[in-house]
Amino acid sequence: MRVRNRKGASELLANNPQYVISNPEECKGKWAEIFGNNNPIHIEVGSGKGRFVTGMAAQNPDINYIGIDIQMTVLSYALDRVLEAGLPNIKLLQVDGSSLTNYFAPAEIDQLYLNFSDPWPKKRHEKRRLTYKSFLDTYKEILPEKGEIHFKTDNRGLFEYSLASFSQYGMVLKQVWLDLHADGLEGNVMTEYEEKFSNKGQVIYRVEAQFQ
Amino acid sequence: MRVRNRKGASELLANNPQYVISNPEECKGKWAEIFGNNNPIHIEVGSGKGRFVTGMAAQNPDINYIGIDIQMTVLSYALDRVLEAGLPNIKLLQVDGSSLTNYFAPAEIDQLYLNFSDPWPKKRHEKRRLTYKSFLDTYKEILPEKGEIHFKTDNRGLFEYSLASFSQYGMVLKQVWLDLHADGLEGNVMTEYEEKFSNKGQVIYRVEAQFQ
Repeated sequence: MRVRNRKGASELLANNPQYVISNPEECKGKWAEIFGNNNPIHIEVGSGKGRFVTGMAAQNPDINYIGIDIQMTVLSYALDRVLEAGLPNIKLLQVDGSSLTNYFAPAEIDQLYLNFSDPWPKKRHEKRRLTYKSFLDTYKEILPEKGEIHFKTDNRGLFEYSLASFSQYGMVLKQVWLDLHADGLEGNVMTEYEEKFSNKGQVIYRVEAQFQ
Repeated sequence: MRVRNRKGASELLANNPQYVISNPEECKGKWAEIFGNNNPIHIEVGSGKGRFVTGMAAQNPDINYIGIDIQMTVLSYALDRVLEAGLPNIKLLQVDGSSLTNYFAPAEIDQLYLNFSDPWPKKRHEKRRLTYKSFLDTYKEILPEKGEIHFKTDNRGLFEYSLASFSQYGMVLKQVWLDLHADGLEGNVMTEYEEKFSNKGQVIYRVEAQFQ
């Protein structure tokens, strides 16, 4: 997600340490302590403006959520939403998706969401796609055995690529949706993108893929 | 494919033994002999009126093709097309997709096509879908190690089901197309259904799935 820089974003993030993790390297293996309970932890990699992760946190009070985005401005907009929601079960983390093993211990995360990730359509940018095998290596390390990735996108090319990438990695596709809003999904929380694109009549794809 | 009965279909099939196999049980392990060469053998299960399998045979003279359909009338229309094409590398077989191991020896078939198979949308009919696991057992037995199924359909529900079914069976999805005619595929031979539905603007799905 590309957004114009926001003045004061850095200060906003720094001033809200109850929601924004400022010392991510020190958190590895300590997330239960940080949340103050042993509830499952779900992360969204590329959480953008935070509508999905905040909505999920509101819907599922017994699950802890961490929204992860590398872009400061985007994360600051997510923080606006998190502050408004005032929930105890959500944190935000400004780090890169490829470095997650620095911040999470093996199997510390129970489930991982990818929503409307950057498609990087050029073949030479394949390695930047969040469903490329090197990212799957990272996710596998921080998820439990049989851990799952739940992935939504409106981008056909990225979805075609990702189904094959998951499968070739040895993951099993538990369920596939080729028109999520036609089929329906109980408890589906829409992202900003999802609402915008699905209102335009764009098909939304979804898959639940499981490590083996 | 449901079609009205055709008068004389039975006779037409019986009168063309050069194309229509009349003694399938005796063919097991002898297909190279029947074709008179050791070229790879590809089969289409549910070949309908035969446009795909005949088109493939014309396009690929060094591959032998067998169109398989349980319905006599449908197979008789395929025979019309085969007679017109007059190709040496195609045969037709009127048997059920679940009984293929009776007619083919292990690894006797090199590749298997499913095109626009009956979707059997009701959950209670799941076992009739040609991508249900019991059919995959059958296909696996007659294909070589790392054998492939190439599957096309316009039916979203069947495609969603089949991707999960292949994956849960342990097959790897080599490539997925979520809009075949937008992406293009070199050498794609259209079926009757495919042309009709894609002219209506319907998306055509395709997958190449490989046994492991």
